[in-house]
Amino acid sequence: MTAKLSDAEIETALAGVPGWTRNGDGIDRQYKFGDFTHAFAFMTRVALLAEKADHHPEWSNVWNKVDVRLTTHDAGGLSKKDFSLARAIDADE
Amino acid sequence: MTAKLSDAEIETALAGVPGWTRNGDGIDRQYKFGDFTHAFAFMTRVALLAEKADHHPEWSNVWNKVDVRLTTHDAGGLSKKDFSLARAIDADE
Repeated sequence: MTAKLSDAEIETALAGVPGWTRNGDGIDRQYKFGDFTHAFAFMTRVALLAEKADHHPEWSNVWNKVDVRLTTHDAGGLSKKDFSLARAIDADE
Repeated sequence: MTAKLSDAEIETALAGVPGWTRNGDGIDRQYKFGDFTHAFAFMTRVALLAEKADHHPEWSNVWNKVDVRLTTHDAGGLSKKDFSLARAIDADE
């Protein structure tokens, strides 16, 4: 069981991941690339980070765009895992 | 410019890709795997097929599930490209 963050904790954590927006129980970010190849290369990197963290995104791709949503189902909201993965994704970008 | 298929042509083509469902201007299929690793391995194979065909899916992934939608924007509906990619994906599964 992962602890659900409070609104105040979420606000603080969001300040550390510019580009991400809170959307209900999760945080969202859209990434845009030059073409599909670059978008999918990004997805491959994120897939490896997610598998390593044992925490996986809900995401979609349309050609050069990748929409990523992070939430922690077993916490019923946002947890540290979401912000940790968001930072890892952005460090990797 | 890719030719848009007629309803009759779509019906015939759909018979050749069991598992796919027509949904407005596109065809949809959900694939389910044992875990994220297998789902993403499938996505990687589809990404290579799509890039080779120069025809890309609109798709999303949540852990072990991959939802794939195929449509041809420049045809304003379904074209042969969609069914050709659907067959390639399923041959590859």
